[in-house]
Amino acid sequence: MKSAAVTMMSGLSLSTTPPRSAALSSCFFSFSLPIYSYSSIKIKKPLIHVNSIRNSSSITAKPSSEMRKNNNNNGSEQDQRLTALRELFGKPGVNIDAYIIPSQDAHQSEFIAECYMRRAYISGFTGSAGTAVVTRHKAALWTDGRYFLQAEKQLSSSWILMRAGNWGVPNTTEWLTDVLAPGGRIGIDPFLFSSDAVNELKEAVSKSNHELVYLYDVNLVDEVWKDARPTPPNKPIRIHDLKYAGVDVSTKLSNLRSELTDSGSSAIVISMLDEVAWLLNLRGNDVPHSPVMYAYLIVEINAAKLFVDNSKVTPEVMDYLKKAGIELRPYDSILTEIESLAARGAHLWLDTASVNAAIASTYASACDKYLQSVGSKSKGKNISGAPGALCKSSPISLAKAVKNHAELEGMRDSHLRDAAALAEFWSWLEEEMNKNVVLTEVQVADKLLEFRAMQAGFVDTSFDTISGSGANGAIIHYRAEPESCSVVDTQKLFLLDSGAQYLDGTTDITRTVHFGQPSERQKECFTRVLQGHIALDQAVFPENTPGFVLDAFARSSLWKVGLDYRHGTGHGVGAALNVHEGPQSISFRFGNMTPMLKGMIVSNEPGYYEDHAFGIRIENLLFVKEIDTPNRFGGITYIGFEKLTFVPIQTKLVDLNLLSAAETDWLNDYHLQVWEKVSPLVGGSAREWLWNNTRPVAKP
Amino acid sequence: MKSAAVTMMSGLSLSTTPPRSAALSSCFFSFSLPIYSYSSIKIKKPLIHVNSIRNSSSITAKPSSEMRKNNNNNGSEQDQRLTALRELFGKPGVNIDAYIIPSQDAHQSEFIAECYMRRAYISGFTGSAGTAVVTRHKAALWTDGRYFLQAEKQLSSSWILMRAGNWGVPNTTEWLTDVLAPGGRIGIDPFLFSSDAVNELKEAVSKSNHELVYLYDVNLVDEVWKDARPTPPNKPIRIHDLKYAGVDVSTKLSNLRSELTDSGSSAIVISMLDEVAWLLNLRGNDVPHSPVMYAYLIVEINAAKLFVDNSKVTPEVMDYLKKAGIELRPYDSILTEIESLAARGAHLWLDTASVNAAIASTYASACDKYLQSVGSKSKGKNISGAPGALCKSSPISLAKAVKNHAELEGMRDSHLRDAAALAEFWSWLEEEMNKNVVLTEVQVADKLLEFRAMQAGFVDTSFDTISGSGANGAIIHYRAEPESCSVVDTQKLFLLDSGAQYLDGTTDITRTVHFGQPSERQKECFTRVLQGHIALDQAVFPENTPGFVLDAFARSSLWKVGLDYRHGTGHGVGAALNVHEGPQSISFRFGNMTPMLKGMIVSNEPGYYEDHAFGIRIENLLFVKEIDTPNRFGGITYIGFEKLTFVPIQTKLVDLNLLSAAETDWLNDYHLQVWEKVSPLVGGSAREWLWNNTRPVAKP
Repeated sequence: MKSAAVTMMSGLSLSTTPPRSAALSSCFFSFSLPIYSYSSIKIKKPLIHVNSIRNSSSITAKPSSEMRKNNNNNGSEQDQRLTALRELFGKPGVNIDAYIIPSQDAHQSEFIAECYMRRAYISGFTGSAGTAVVTRHKAALWTDGRYFLQAEKQLSSSWILMRAGNWGVPNTTEWLTDVLAPGGRIGIDPFLFSSDAVNELKEAVSKSNHELVYLYDVNLVDEVWKDARPTPPNKPIRIHDLKYAGVDVSTKLSNLRSELTDSGSSAIVISMLDEVAWLLNLRGNDVPHSPVMYAYLIVEINAAKLFVDNSKVTPEVMDYLKKAGIELRPYDSILTEIESLAARGAHLWLDTASVNAAIASTYASACDKYLQSVGSKSKGKNISGAPGALCKSSPISLAKAVKNHAELEGMRDSHLRDAAALAEFWSWLEEEMNKNVVLTEVQVADKLLEFRAMQAGFVDTSFDTISGSGANGAIIHYRAEPESCSVVDTQKLFLLDSGAQYLDGTTDITRTVHFGQPSERQKECFTRVLQGHIALDQAVFPENTPGFVLDAFARSSLWKVGLDYRHGTGHGVGAALNVHEGPQSISFRFGNMTPMLKGMIVSNEPGYYEDHAFGIRIENLLFVKEIDTPNRFGGITYIGFEKLTFVPIQTKLVDLNLLSAAETDWLNDYHLQVWEKVSPLVGGSAREWLWNNTRPVAKP
Repeated sequence: MKSAAVTMMSGLSLSTTPPRSAALSSCFFSFSLPIYSYSSIKIKKPLIHVNSIRNSSSITAKPSSEMRKNNNNNGSEQDQRLTALRELFGKPGVNIDAYIIPSQDAHQSEFIAECYMRRAYISGFTGSAGTAVVTRHKAALWTDGRYFLQAEKQLSSSWILMRAGNWGVPNTTEWLTDVLAPGGRIGIDPFLFSSDAVNELKEAVSKSNHELVYLYDVNLVDEVWKDARPTPPNKPIRIHDLKYAGVDVSTKLSNLRSELTDSGSSAIVISMLDEVAWLLNLRGNDVPHSPVMYAYLIVEINAAKLFVDNSKVTPEVMDYLKKAGIELRPYDSILTEIESLAARGAHLWLDTASVNAAIASTYASACDKYLQSVGSKSKGKNISGAPGALCKSSPISLAKAVKNHAELEGMRDSHLRDAAALAEFWSWLEEEMNKNVVLTEVQVADKLLEFRAMQAGFVDTSFDTISGSGANGAIIHYRAEPESCSVVDTQKLFLLDSGAQYLDGTTDITRTVHFGQPSERQKECFTRVLQGHIALDQAVFPENTPGFVLDAFARSSLWKVGLDYRHGTGHGVGAALNVHEGPQSISFRFGNMTPMLKGMIVSNEPGYYEDHAFGIRIENLLFVKEIDTPNRFGGITYIGFEKLTFVPIQTKLVDLNLLSAAETDWLNDYHLQVWEKVSPLVGGSAREWLWNNTRPVAKP
């Protein structure tokens, strides 16, 4: 498992272990490794556009079956785009021999707006992870094993598919070295690379005697795209109610400013969209699944500026920001402000793993100018050498990960409503299956969305639902498409991984069920996955233990019979924010030393996948809490988990002979809690289904 | 737990994480961290001299009660030594302002010969870990928390005790910076520091504007010690029978030479004494507990030279070496040979974590000369820059750790004889206790040695027995001394950790027993330690998993009630060699990425220690073997453990209500195996004791 991971890592040389990448790579879909940065490791493609189904706020989701498709271009249209792009290479002020087009937006987002899907536009390949490189005579696209088939279908013959991770496949710079004459100029849009990623890229490029050229003023793909390019999202921003946020903006700003002062910094640039949203208690609607808006935030000791498109700012939000002492600036003026900060000698805190290279480089250059103007002899050649630049993980990341009381309450409440929706959904689905109604994976996912959308405070799905029958369940990144998906087969296992955004919280749950008679093999595998789930759920451990220490608990029962799964066991989850967040994780990757802390939320999602046969995953969300242990050896606190998710686990799939008495007790106790917490929220057949599916079990 | 470790690490700045240190720091006695290198972390002091009790070979052990004591010097004698040392500071060719005296010998050995106990001689402090620093006007000794009381007693008023790990205590270089005028010359014996340790020291010293001075030709403490200094050990070397070694020297040399060739090296210096012994299938008698001899070995592609005192080489060994193509050289001529190698342009493989600075520096200087002589312009300023120097872990370390069939057979057989000795011992001790005979912890340990010495092939104890009654059992590094030890109290828990060297194998076992009625508290703690022991014993995991992944299994049951232990769970064990060896370990320290491999031997020794009350530890040795799992997910092998140790675990201490059915089965199955394997080797009351103590248990 580890050796496979290492092999895949060799595909491309950039930012294989940024701190956030390590954190997020823990979640179950990350067995294929990041290509450029952590946003590219996600397997859940963003919905192209988000329309309303049911409004509890201005923001809602769209069923998969109605999605616009992106890959309807024929080869000749793709080739025209390539030609148009190459024509720009020789333009004055451009003058490059190659151009690299990554998947990212300027904020390292997991889900991005359509107008930023430049790699998909230029190459025709719509998978979530990939990097396109175009030279005057060649074009190549790198993606990982999850997308080889899709890329083969979508790329025209003008493109070379680079199967990253396969033996002998060069990485981007190796390939460029091969195809470019020495002294080649390689262009990038510096907004689309993190500062760390660009530093690695720059080093690799310079080693091969080429030059990396930052094209600040224009994205060449946008130039080709022209009027056909979707307009940037401009849905209104809303205020995230204090009863859900728990802590007001002025307190959050005050805490942040204390950290700035303690670190000797006078300002910080916050570029992760969920960090901006969390700090300001604002929510947006610019990308699917994550309630965030495109914006940068600069916080100084005595000022704060939000860089955002004015059209999204309602009078209410305008007023709110004014009261909080936050000035508004145009989104596009970020670099001007960075230059101004340097000119004022500001000591800037930069999280170079997330802040893009345009910002970091602009700051470094401006600091150079500042030093020259004050007559200093020392020059800041790079960010770390620049006066006042503190390159360090954003302090918001950990603050956001540790939930306050109100955030936890919101997560608890929204999880119960989500559980009610799921009880209604499963009750409905079982009935349909019993009636032999033929339903596709997509139809089932759409129906689930309907049930969720009826719940109070529903906003959106928190990621694209994974709805996989039989062998599709074994494809960890499976995405059912209306035109190609399978029927949900009553004779096979059915895996359903889904989640929702509510005004007060974010959910993420996986259940695996069988509508007929599961095989002994399926029962054994399911039971071992369940044992891993229980072992992690019940773990108690010293405070400050890093998550990877706990990962083996979730695998132990599978390992005993030579089984395993190729993904991490747990990822962080935002409170009414991103469904995948760092910095903590529970994973077999040992690089993430973030300690588990009281108030953090993690998923508990062991699985087992039998190729071409079936997939099993059991996922609950948990929050970390202090355990009132009878002892406190070492004078420290011992911590463990409390469940947020309350949806029955199908006991039909459990081989009770494999369970210990304690494990059986866990299952019965969980189902008792499910009944007690969720039954008041449902009626009719859903309530009957809930009753039937929460009955205690015992060995025969 | 982790934060405590970090605090202690700040005590002294040198070599906190050399690869071997990380590996060896896993064993239970290492919760106090190394001061200079891994040899200083051991808590078991070497016996001063080794006499015969019973000869199965030329080498045997001496009971603790007869040991010579070292700390019988009074303060004035200590001060005279200090004065004499300082007089040497001004000698021509010395000219230093301070001298650092570490605990080490020239080979980073865990147990060292008396003639190398220079720090103990000069300071009067006889603990196993400590560093003395003497300036013209001051003298200071650093040791860790295990030895504060002992050091207070043993140091004269001329010495400052530096309590390493305590808040505000400077490390050696910080202190020297404080007490020396700028430009101070700090002398060391470069043989007594690993190359890595000296590089760290050099950097720290130069930062504080001092200079590190290597005194190659003379150890200043030896100059003071003069004729009173014990002569170096000169007991004869013996051949380790091929039936135990399994692989002959020419095959081992041939494998090593392949590795040299593959790495582009033309020679390697082997300086770890157990590596020399293992590679040549020789055993020595130069230090207590480890069957090794002081020697260096240089292996070239077409030659091999053993640097050893001729007086230890019997005609038989001389002949054996000659046949193996190994030349003999005087031990003291190692540096001359290093210079000669460099002069011949040899590409040297150096494990700088173990090879001493005298060798590494001599090689670097000689390479410089060589380069000048061949007219090259590039100069090797340090080892890594020198032509041909490959700084890499010794290939012998891993080869030695993975046992072959004969080594495993020897380990199995010797463990059964050891188990027979322990059955006789425990049977005897229980009878004595029943008869109310008063026995001290030392008397009991001596009696155990008697029983072991009667076993075929017995050579020595493998470390100083830890025999702790009641509160003494809670002192993890406890060493009972004849004049101060406790009586074994029938109303308290008794912890006994001991091991033996046999001709065919090495043992290490801990059992904790109660001769009366244990409290419920003691039973709960014992049972949870046992559950951890069982969980690790039963673990199955993918090949190449690093040991630290398994550590949490051994703690999980303790953690559930807020308990833990401040030491690692498992260390490697040599086959008829060092009882503590790397590179693998099972520990909460995450730095050691060495994978667990088939054939490795590890200890399984979780514990729990209640200060001033009792200590519990249950230790078996295990070897890593392939598990015939019904599946092989990922196409890999799944591995697990098989027990080497077969001695009853006291069921009186087990709370059967806490055990799962599977855990009770484990205990009963283990005891069945103990009876079947060991009963044929014992008779009379020991056999009866074995029968009584291997009966199956069941919940009442």
